[in-house]
Amino acid sequence: MNAFRNRVGGFAFGGDYNPEQWDPAVWREDVRLMREAGVNTVSLGVFAWASLEPEPGTYEFGWMDEVMDLLHENGVSVNLATPTAAPPVWLTHLHPEVFPVMADGQPFGFGNRLHYDPSSPIYREYAANITTKLAERYSFHPALAMWHISNEYGPTAYNEAASVNFRSWLRRRYGDLGTLNEAWTTRFWGQVYTDWDQIEVPNIPRTWMNPARKLDFKRFTSDALLECYLAERDIVRSFRDDVPVMTNFMRFFRHADYWRWAREEDAVALDIYPNPADADSHVSAAFNYDLFRSLKGGQPWMLMEQSSSAVSQWKLNVVKEPGRMRLGSLQAVSRAADSVLFFQWRAGRGGHERFHSAMLPHSGPDSRTFREITELGRELKLLAPVAGTTSRAEIAILFDWDGWWGLEETHGLPRADFSYPDTAMRHYTPLWERHLPVDVVSAGSSLDGYKVLVVPNAYLIDDDGAERIRAFARDGGTVIMSFFSGVVDDCNRVRPDGYPGAFRELIGAKIDEYWPARPHEEFAVEFADGRRTTATWWRDDLHLETGTALATYTDGLLEGRAAVVGNTYGAGRVVYFATLLERAAFDAVVLDAVAAAGVRSPFEGVPAHVECAVRGDDAYEYVFLLNHSGELRASVPIGGEGTDLLTGRRVSGEVGLAPLGAAVIQRARG
Amino acid sequence: MNAFRNRVGGFAFGGDYNPEQWDPAVWREDVRLMREAGVNTVSLGVFAWASLEPEPGTYEFGWMDEVMDLLHENGVSVNLATPTAAPPVWLTHLHPEVFPVMADGQPFGFGNRLHYDPSSPIYREYAANITTKLAERYSFHPALAMWHISNEYGPTAYNEAASVNFRSWLRRRYGDLGTLNEAWTTRFWGQVYTDWDQIEVPNIPRTWMNPARKLDFKRFTSDALLECYLAERDIVRSFRDDVPVMTNFMRFFRHADYWRWAREEDAVALDIYPNPADADSHVSAAFNYDLFRSLKGGQPWMLMEQSSSAVSQWKLNVVKEPGRMRLGSLQAVSRAADSVLFFQWRAGRGGHERFHSAMLPHSGPDSRTFREITELGRELKLLAPVAGTTSRAEIAILFDWDGWWGLEETHGLPRADFSYPDTAMRHYTPLWERHLPVDVVSAGSSLDGYKVLVVPNAYLIDDDGAERIRAFARDGGTVIMSFFSGVVDDCNRVRPDGYPGAFRELIGAKIDEYWPARPHEEFAVEFADGRRTTATWWRDDLHLETGTALATYTDGLLEGRAAVVGNTYGAGRVVYFATLLERAAFDAVVLDAVAAAGVRSPFEGVPAHVECAVRGDDAYEYVFLLNHSGELRASVPIGGEGTDLLTGRRVSGEVGLAPLGAAVIQRARG
Amino acid sequence: MNAFRNRVGGFAFGGDYNPEQWDPAVWREDVRLMREAGVNTVSLGVFAWASLEPEPGTYEFGWMDEVMDLLHENGVSVNLATPTAAPPVWLTHLHPEVFPVMADGQPFGFGNRLHYDPSSPIYREYAANITTKLAERYSFHPALAMWHISNEYGPTAYNEAASVNFRSWLRRRYGDLGTLNEAWTTRFWGQVYTDWDQIEVPNIPRTWMNPARKLDFKRFTSDALLECYLAERDIVRSFRDDVPVMTNFMRFFRHADYWRWAREEDAVALDIYPNPADADSHVSAAFNYDLFRSLKGGQPWMLMEQSSSAVSQWKLNVVKEPGRMRLGSLQAVSRAADSVLFFQWRAGRGGHERFHSAMLPHSGPDSRTFREITELGRELKLLAPVAGTTSRAEIAILFDWDGWWGLEETHGLPRADFSYPDTAMRHYTPLWERHLPVDVVSAGSSLDGYKVLVVPNAYLIDDDGAERIRAFARDGGTVIMSFFSGVVDDCNRVRPDGYPGAFRELIGAKIDEYWPARPHEEFAVEFADGRRTTATWWRDDLHLETGTALATYTDGLLEGRAAVVGNTYGAGRVVYFATLLERAAFDAVVLDAVAAAGVRSPFEGVPAHVECAVRGDDAYEYVFLLNHSGELRASVPIGGEGTDLLTGRRVSGEVGLAPLGAAVIQRARG
Repeated sequence: MNAFRNRVGGFAFGGDYNPEQWDPAVWREDVRLMREAGVNTVSLGVFAWASLEPEPGTYEFGWMDEVMDLLHENGVSVNLATPTAAPPVWLTHLHPEVFPVMADGQPFGFGNRLHYDPSSPIYREYAANITTKLAERYSFHPALAMWHISNEYGPTAYNEAASVNFRSWLRRRYGDLGTLNEAWTTRFWGQVYTDWDQIEVPNIPRTWMNPARKLDFKRFTSDALLECYLAERDIVRSFRDDVPVMTNFMRFFRHADYWRWAREEDAVALDIYPNPADADSHVSAAFNYDLFRSLKGGQPWMLMEQSSSAVSQWKLNVVKEPGRMRLGSLQAVSRAADSVLFFQWRAGRGGHERFHSAMLPHSGPDSRTFREITELGRELKLLAPVAGTTSRAEIAILFDWDGWWGLEETHGLPRADFSYPDTAMRHYTPLWERHLPVDVVSAGSSLDGYKVLVVPNAYLIDDDGAERIRAFARDGGTVIMSFFSGVVDDCNRVRPDGYPGAFRELIGAKIDEYWPARPHEEFAVEFADGRRTTATWWRDDLHLETGTALATYTDGLLEGRAAVVGNTYGAGRVVYFATLLERAAFDAVVLDAVAAAGVRSPFEGVPAHVECAVRGDDAYEYVFLLNHSGELRASVPIGGEGTDLLTGRRVSGEVGLAPLGAAVIQRARG
Repeated sequence: MNAFRNRVGGFAFGGDYNPEQWDPAVWREDVRLMREAGVNTVSLGVFAWASLEPEPGTYEFGWMDEVMDLLHENGVSVNLATPTAAPPVWLTHLHPEVFPVMADGQPFGFGNRLHYDPSSPIYREYAANITTKLAERYSFHPALAMWHISNEYGPTAYNEAASVNFRSWLRRRYGDLGTLNEAWTTRFWGQVYTDWDQIEVPNIPRTWMNPARKLDFKRFTSDALLECYLAERDIVRSFRDDVPVMTNFMRFFRHADYWRWAREEDAVALDIYPNPADADSHVSAAFNYDLFRSLKGGQPWMLMEQSSSAVSQWKLNVVKEPGRMRLGSLQAVSRAADSVLFFQWRAGRGGHERFHSAMLPHSGPDSRTFREITELGRELKLLAPVAGTTSRAEIAILFDWDGWWGLEETHGLPRADFSYPDTAMRHYTPLWERHLPVDVVSAGSSLDGYKVLVVPNAYLIDDDGAERIRAFARDGGTVIMSFFSGVVDDCNRVRPDGYPGAFRELIGAKIDEYWPARPHEEFAVEFADGRRTTATWWRDDLHLETGTALATYTDGLLEGRAAVVGNTYGAGRVVYFATLLERAAFDAVVLDAVAAAGVRSPFEGVPAHVECAVRGDDAYEYVFLLNHSGELRASVPIGGEGTDLLTGRRVSGEVGLAPLGAAVIQRARG
Repeated sequence: MNAFRNRVGGFAFGGDYNPEQWDPAVWREDVRLMREAGVNTVSLGVFAWASLEPEPGTYEFGWMDEVMDLLHENGVSVNLATPTAAPPVWLTHLHPEVFPVMADGQPFGFGNRLHYDPSSPIYREYAANITTKLAERYSFHPALAMWHISNEYGPTAYNEAASVNFRSWLRRRYGDLGTLNEAWTTRFWGQVYTDWDQIEVPNIPRTWMNPARKLDFKRFTSDALLECYLAERDIVRSFRDDVPVMTNFMRFFRHADYWRWAREEDAVALDIYPNPADADSHVSAAFNYDLFRSLKGGQPWMLMEQSSSAVSQWKLNVVKEPGRMRLGSLQAVSRAADSVLFFQWRAGRGGHERFHSAMLPHSGPDSRTFREITELGRELKLLAPVAGTTSRAEIAILFDWDGWWGLEETHGLPRADFSYPDTAMRHYTPLWERHLPVDVVSAGSSLDGYKVLVVPNAYLIDDDGAERIRAFARDGGTVIMSFFSGVVDDCNRVRPDGYPGAFRELIGAKIDEYWPARPHEEFAVEFADGRRTTATWWRDDLHLETGTALATYTDGLLEGRAAVVGNTYGAGRVVYFATLLERAAFDAVVLDAVAAAGVRSPFEGVPAHVECAVRGDDAYEYVFLLNHSGELRASVPIGGEGTDLLTGRRVSGEVGLAPLGAAVIQRARG
């Protein structure tokens, strides 16, 4: 990746480029305007399979040769895609069994994308073949700077081939049927399997599914997709291993365990489309950016796709108002993105996404969008020293796909409306608002070096993950945990000996029963210091053991009982929420625990609409100040002096920000 | 059933027991705790097919032998289930055609329960076989006290085998195609059948279905399920005919005509899960209990499944707060339940229902739930004299599956949002609130001995049922009837000569047209004595013949016309609601009619939150006083004296009840 | 059609007649009551296929012979239907592939209507055969007055036969695959077709479909249905070509391009069921009536089906209150209907539509409905001179199926909640409320003679249509156009060189970007004269070129920019709405532009609840005054004198109308 950064001179800037949709005359205009806009990188060929292999075994590389040369001549590096996200129509016409069968039992037809069963050996064979041909031809082309393996891996398929592959996966996982039957608790409802061939992917019924089978199917689906990725990655690596290889992930994507995937990527890359109609979308974007920075242990990541303005796939596609695309791009950079790439370079005339905004919109270069793009290209060059740097936090928050699937892909919980991303966001938001840096960890991550671990509703966690959390506390860390954590093991089985099985000693309390609240039910809660608040949604019927009540209910059937528990565990401190506190009270408890753990933000007192983030290296730190308000100005004390890279001016004391304004202050470590 | 009552010494107490999910070590703990809790009955083997016949024709009865012996040694009687609700995976793997095809054309897959087409001859053969094996082995085991045939019969299947069976059913019903074509009015839309094989189950289209075909399909589905029951029942009876045989019904279950089924059961058994989040769920529970007492003419019934606290199948599973499980159990007993059984004994660790509460919860015996269960077991022993007694009402309410299907399974009515259970509840509620005992009758039930018959919107009623109602009135009974009654015959054909075809003379009015109301439309209504109220939802455009207006509209296009009609019919009296009155006015009309018929409650004046119900025999009556309020105390005059069986104390004058308090007063008939 | 009018003596009056559902004894009563009611026309045999051909190749015409004779003897003309909308069960039992496969991949089953794939050669063969047999037998029967080809053509099928037919249709349209690939922009997402057989009907996936493929499939579906119509029409014409032939269309029916169909009909016929629960349903009815009058260039049309009171297919089927059926019938006549026909004559006892009201209801002839029907029959005779006359407007409004499909059958627009009928209604309503006559035109219609052309959101328009609009303005016409017009060509491809591609010069502005508004977002707008209003839903980010701002935003990011544009284009005038104005302001702009174009209503000042419409011929005009208010009286100045045909009285000055009252004033042209 360092080589790539050097090649592009800092940040990669550009987008998806689909020249096969246009005449060669347009290509010339494209490269001219790319240069005008400062574009240095394009993703090429993402959906070009039909153009590269118009008939089985017949190849047309001429146009791509020409485009690669043209780009290279114009100083644009190529992130070359294997085109396997969009099999040509001849493939599915010859082999309809490649179409993925959907959960409702119907095959997905031709006309969209991702129309393949990842377990299909036929698909895999054709995909390997076109990948090999591409690698043969372009591995040593001077424009080649990176491999973009396929696109947004995602399909879940319920084909017969998926069942075959699922059985192999289960054999590898469990070895024998007895172990599987035990793990899946198949004695319940008399579901005992006596032959591997009896196991099918769980397409139907759609409700009341064995929770372990459903959980394993999610794991399997992620792995089946990963197998596709690995096969293509290994092919391109076999030609040359000094070019970074990756695929593009998506924001909060439920169907692939990115922790497992990240290990196999040279860098992680994110496609993200924060909804401009949602006033808080930059907060969840920040969380995604922190996740992506964390996925490979702090290594800078690639912002692979975003939009210059509106998208087209939603029911309502609001534009990014003037200045917001630039601000959002800088936000990604502030959290360690090393690229600002868009889908796509030039707006198409036809096809489903023709109203998806582009760097070069339908209205052409004389347009607000192209002017903003060009200005952003200019600014990114100014930020070149920032590229390659990163950051490290003292607070970690748990975000884990197994935990997600446990909570959301399981029927039969006390309530069915848990949202894993929402609960994670609820825990992340007070930290973000106070400019407290946060890393994201999985259940399997090392927790070394963190002072605080935040554990949102962690219903499902395996034994090792639970022990990591306990050890973290035992060794002096602060754990902030929410209700319905540690309930089941990695087979979705309730842990024995009372709730919360994995964390009873950690939180110092036993829970007799989970009490979901009725809609609109509200409970009065009082803190030890007399502050009053309310709670909703959930109550643990909890009995303190070693823990103490930080807050208690003052009404209802649990009057006098603990609503928030504090506990000392080994050398550490635990705060446990046994209910859903009203937001201000919840935030205060979290922030108190963080402060007590000795973690402070350098931007204390800066209002929440000004996002403050720092990345750096041994020599310099880069302070990003981003004013998300379209109306309010702000003044941020920076406690020293530095250089605003965007203006080149020295700043000291306080930095003023116009509405939607930004500053990136470089200062030497010291 | 008397032998069974004697065997358990009064009330059966216990629940579903699934030892095949646990180690034998756990079985020992189970029986120890069962004894501690006073459990005397368990339902065994409901989902044990896969454990009993792990391969086709290979049986493992050892574990069940051991469990049966262990239970017997510990004084626990067994309600032994045929395990046919959950065919093993090998069965459907060998014979996928057994999977029921759903209404959307897709087969139901493996992983839930009830995954069989009841018309499948293959399923029926395997089910008969395992039933025979079980009966061979355990018919004379000393633990055997009752047979539990399969479980919650319910699936509706649209398989080819269902079509074959449907044709046979139709041949038996109609004899020849000409009669069927006439009954189904197939000349409409040119649907005339000319060959039996042309008739399919009505899976598709899903809308605008021939209303007679759809109605017959509902009848057929109920009968196809009943055939399954009868086959298994007859097998176990062929070994021994002195053990009660039954299956477990469900609350307000639309897909089986329990009146037809009840004839074939030794007792009726109910699975019921009133929603603790619904403040009125005990009222509809009471109605179900009255229905179940009535299904076999007043014979005590079995409460076969309920929950100790929360269930897990809903989107929000609220717990039963302390005291409510006990109160609900006593409520069932008050309306002639002779058992209090739960699903299930021990909470499972895995499987879909692991968060469904149990008698022994995840938190173990040191838990609120187990303490409440143990206390309930103790109390039920005190109530032993009550078992076997019953009650009889002077008011009957019509609740009939044909009527239900007519109203809810028929497209093309003046409005599509009729709810049969809701309309029945609306008529039942004022009677329940005034502690007026009610029996439930079908269109085919004898009405002898009743003074009042309540007929909710009885859109579909056959000629015989209509004549029973007319005869009841003619002979001096009081009929309270709501609009849209007597409209169609048992083939869903509009009765000729104007609405309401069957009841024009009975109500003394002809209806020109049905006028459903617009949403939010409200009409002013005035009674003869000047009281004013409002009406919504529906108006008959009605012309009085022999009837008189008890209330008239005072606005709108029907101003001056009758909204409620009174009529004298033979020696009887009829009150007819031509609109939906506001609740208080509706209740008043109903209660006035009941009072005029000479029916009074002994608990007049007792507030509605204190449910008062009586059961008894020739020697004693048992007065149940149940305070459903969690906040209010109550004092109930009992007009005499008696012994509260729960406390053993003599009481007289007034009985005080704490919030959620109960008393069961035994007194000699006098 | 003149011959037909003469035959029935003016207006056709009657309805669908289904004698095959009844005994011959009922037929005698039917014709007696038809004569009593003034019925002169019935539609016979619409669903009689199964009764005419009970077995393949076996015919039973005896009953129809008898009915035809009986009707003829009683002076009732027959609109004889080919019964092909309802294939007999033996046909689909023999050939299940005739069942249409629905969008979800499931075949539509037997038991409804329209259960055929219009592309099926088997269906077409059987349909041609029964049509031939009917024509052989009845072409010269004296009762025959008109042919009613099939019924409510509508099914969309996704069968294999549909794919075969779709490919033929595409070959005819595009000639070669290269042209198709270009037209469909298949390079996007790599969808290039290399063999015709690779093209399937777009059943799955259901979202994110190639927008050109989906558009062509809509065109094809309309044409495949039309092929069925043409085949049957040509058969009956081959026997005799002096009897009018048509089929019955439906209101705002999305799936058939009635402009293309109308060319093939001797007259257009409409089935319409305005919802009595919707207080404005008469306004959209008026628009439909104007459309139907326009479909064949002003020729009177047939009101083929309406209801006497409630229908039965909705969730809530409200009745037509007294007087409303008559008023609605006169409203159709006022806009050039030459018939008032009902579905159906006699209410059925069974079948899906037994609660659909009829001319003769369940309550028989002694009923409100039959009395109103009889009175209407009497009144229509008084209006006989009106039949055959028509009207012509100075204002035209564009309503075009290609435009509809572009806007509503295309995924990926800036917002997905456009409704083409709703947007057309929004433009039509202010004109209707001011009694301004409006014709409806397609993109291909001649615009000669109009002064004003109203163009609702015309997203998709072909080059020829766009040029017609520009030419209309250039030649002096006034164009009133709404945003998101002229965006794509007839292949759903964005027109190049900036929005709005087709109309940039026409409106005198370039649009940089489309800005859909957030929910509840509202913008302040001020007109040049200082009037203020608000806008919602949409804003163009628009830059004036030759145009001027008629109104500008006074807040938000577009403050000071144009919200409504005026432009001079050639000799014409253009008003362009760049946002959705609040209704009163929108109406005022529209009406100002109409007034400026010199178009005035003779009924200026008459309140909106009194509909005023005129039809006539060279000699007379007939002024219809229809008071839709059920509460308010009205007095309408008629500016002269005439004869009210309904009363036979001379009127002059002002005509008074009771609530729901009507007058039809004949006066000589002069």
